[in-house]
Amino acid sequence: MIKANDPALTSWVEVPKGSDFPIQNLPFGIFKTKYLSPVAGVAIGNFVLDLVYLHENGFLDGYDLPSGIFNQPYLNDFIALGKKKTRAIRERLSELLRLDNDELKNNVGARELALIPMDEVEMLLPVKIPNYTDFYSSEEHAYNVGSMFRDPKNALLPNWKHLPVGYHGRASSIVVSGTPIHRPKGQIKPADSELPVFCPSQKLDFELEMAFITNQNTRLGTSVPVHDADNYIFGFVLFNDWSARDIQQWEYVPLGPFLGKNFGSTLSPWIVTLDALEPFRVKGPEQFPNVLPYLAIEGERNFDIILEVFLKPEGASETTISRSNFKYLYWNVNQQLAHHTVNGCNIQVGDLYASGTISGPSPGSYGSMLELSWNGQRPLHLTDGSARTFLQDGDSIILRAHAEHKGVRIGFGDCSGKILPAT
Amino acid sequence: MIKANDPALTSWVEVPKGSDFPIQNLPFGIFKTKYLSPVAGVAIGNFVLDLVYLHENGFLDGYDLPSGIFNQPYLNDFIALGKKKTRAIRERLSELLRLDNDELKNNVGARELALIPMDEVEMLLPVKIPNYTDFYSSEEHAYNVGSMFRDPKNALLPNWKHLPVGYHGRASSIVVSGTPIHRPKGQIKPADSELPVFCPSQKLDFELEMAFITNQNTRLGTSVPVHDADNYIFGFVLFNDWSARDIQQWEYVPLGPFLGKNFGSTLSPWIVTLDALEPFRVKGPEQFPNVLPYLAIEGERNFDIILEVFLKPEGASETTISRSNFKYLYWNVNQQLAHHTVNGCNIQVGDLYASGTISGPSPGSYGSMLELSWNGQRPLHLTDGSARTFLQDGDSIILRAHAEHKGVRIGFGDCSGKILPAT
Repeated sequence: MIKANDPALTSWVEVPKGSDFPIQNLPFGIFKTKYLSPVAGVAIGNFVLDLVYLHENGFLDGYDLPSGIFNQPYLNDFIALGKKKTRAIRERLSELLRLDNDELKNNVGARELALIPMDEVEMLLPVKIPNYTDFYSSEEHAYNVGSMFRDPKNALLPNWKHLPVGYHGRASSIVVSGTPIHRPKGQIKPADSELPVFCPSQKLDFELEMAFITNQNTRLGTSVPVHDADNYIFGFVLFNDWSARDIQQWEYVPLGPFLGKNFGSTLSPWIVTLDALEPFRVKGPEQFPNVLPYLAIEGERNFDIILEVFLKPEGASETTISRSNFKYLYWNVNQQLAHHTVNGCNIQVGDLYASGTISGPSPGSYGSMLELSWNGQRPLHLTDGSARTFLQDGDSIILRAHAEHKGVRIGFGDCSGKILPAT
Repeated sequence: MIKANDPALTSWVEVPKGSDFPIQNLPFGIFKTKYLSPVAGVAIGNFVLDLVYLHENGFLDGYDLPSGIFNQPYLNDFIALGKKKTRAIRERLSELLRLDNDELKNNVGARELALIPMDEVEMLLPVKIPNYTDFYSSEEHAYNVGSMFRDPKNALLPNWKHLPVGYHGRASSIVVSGTPIHRPKGQIKPADSELPVFCPSQKLDFELEMAFITNQNTRLGTSVPVHDADNYIFGFVLFNDWSARDIQQWEYVPLGPFLGKNFGSTLSPWIVTLDALEPFRVKGPEQFPNVLPYLAIEGERNFDIILEVFLKPEGASETTISRSNFKYLYWNVNQQLAHHTVNGCNIQVGDLYASGTISGPSPGSYGSMLELSWNGQRPLHLTDGSARTFLQDGDSIILRAHAEHKGVRIGFGDCSGKILPAT
């Protein structure tokens, strides 16, 4: 049988060169149109495949899907069907879309109703997120931050190489790509002042991250073994963990980031399945000192996914400001999930687990303005002639990601957000 | 009109002396029985008043309640009706239960169906919790912890008196009173070892906290003004933020507590409304230095609520190990909510905002084993002759709270949990 990831596959739906969404991808999302309330869809080329239409018109018969499973504003119930079922559906969609399959291709009426041009849809948050955790798994990022705020010789704290450091974030303020973000106000402690002041953040930043979404509810008191963690992961998205560095710096001792982060985080709308990313596995960085047995992994647990960050000032064009890679992560997603649950913490369907800022080894691969401008000391020069240390009102940040192998490009679509002035 | 809080009110339902649930309380919760699936109820004496029965049988006519509003496993939809409506329902229930009202009292058939003995019900989590935040608002607790781990002369960090420090906690692992908690395993770094080890926590602790539950969804980018914060608060519960001190100590830099906390937190099942607590308002501690304008309050914003902690070893009787008071909190709930949202962070219906450990000025009023045993240096002696520094397997911790004024006692019921061995 031909598998959905086969590089030889082509679709009867036109997929433009450089598209993020060839037949080998088939990411899931939630969309609405002028005529449709929010429903589930899959991206193919410049189209969205309406899963409600396919389900209601017999194209998914034989898969024992619950009635109305796609006619919902979130994918949680579909994802909760489990990997075996969601994988079978993706394989079936691949079959329906491939060039040599006539079922939908030759049914012009159905085809026109099932395929909606992307420019006619509005994408929404793909899942209702019960819990959101942010890790801190890039050694380069942790080293850069530690060097800036402490001491390059002791940049990594003693625990960093023994466990994937993480913290709980705010689920309520996670928004879908395209949602503008107001510059937050808050307490800031100027270096030359004894007292804090209240004002809009002067050090507004982005963070380049990937995140995975879980597909199971586990019982409190149980753990996900590291070697089994893939079975709990439905897929991946791009994630921008907007950060107000000045608010964060004053508030974060001793309990961690709070208002410096929870004013908004941006998610890309398409969940790229773990299955679609299998061809892009690579080994991660060598881990030394050895990790404890519950974190010990075998084989290729990282993914070679190129990450790019673009800054677009109001009315100007984009400048590429960073080019990183998901493969740089020191702690992989299996280790993150195993660590998170080793104490018995339960996970839920739709939980979001973000990587933390993904910085690479060279300055051009740093994943935040804090690092790119080295805390404001080295302004970035943009193609419109302006310069930036941190973000200005009107600036948009666009994160993009793709993996490429044997001519197949698996992309994530845009994860973008524009900064509006403080209210 | 007689108000629900009137100390002169009595009910035709017998309320034993010392009961937490006189007619002036009327807290809301979710219960089930052998015959009923989870539904909403209100506590009165030793009974639970079945709100589905009252609603379906016309006792709440004229209040324009949505159909099925109480026939749900969570109170969120009811709470979301807003303070005006939920207050009117509580006033109506008070009317139905008062001695001089015959509507339910003289309808023996309805009475027997509407009132269910407490020993026949199982209480469940009252709300689905979209977001959980834990503050750190007791000066005595922050001072004690700072003294132990840093230096008594600089026990409070520089930000502490300027803002209510807080962090995001894990919503998935919050359980209702009575749910046992497994001792968590995790990484611990012994003082005499260069490397961390993996083992069950040796410093398992409780934290005595109160928490409030919000009744509105706000828009991202908007803030709750401090003077209006009461309108966003439905009510209060007791909260035990179980903590593994050894896991926490190794992991918590620089992003805060994580696995040391998220293995379980325990909530009391009855939400005592803010309205029921109005008679117990008192002034909080004086705040100096002056707070920034967005945190400035007027009048009595604290509550005089006596808090008690009991430790019950397996098969032995309870020992009172702490007696504290909610009024000791330096930062009040209005300030907590105003601070949390001042950057535009949105809140949601059913969110849980916990106080942090509430310690008082004397050693007998400390709200954790960490403080009571001064990090293990001063064992506590229990009535069964045993001693404790931290919690042992089989130990139960029971938190209780009540306010008393003019002979009216408003209580919270038990918030209890038993420690099971590590799995």
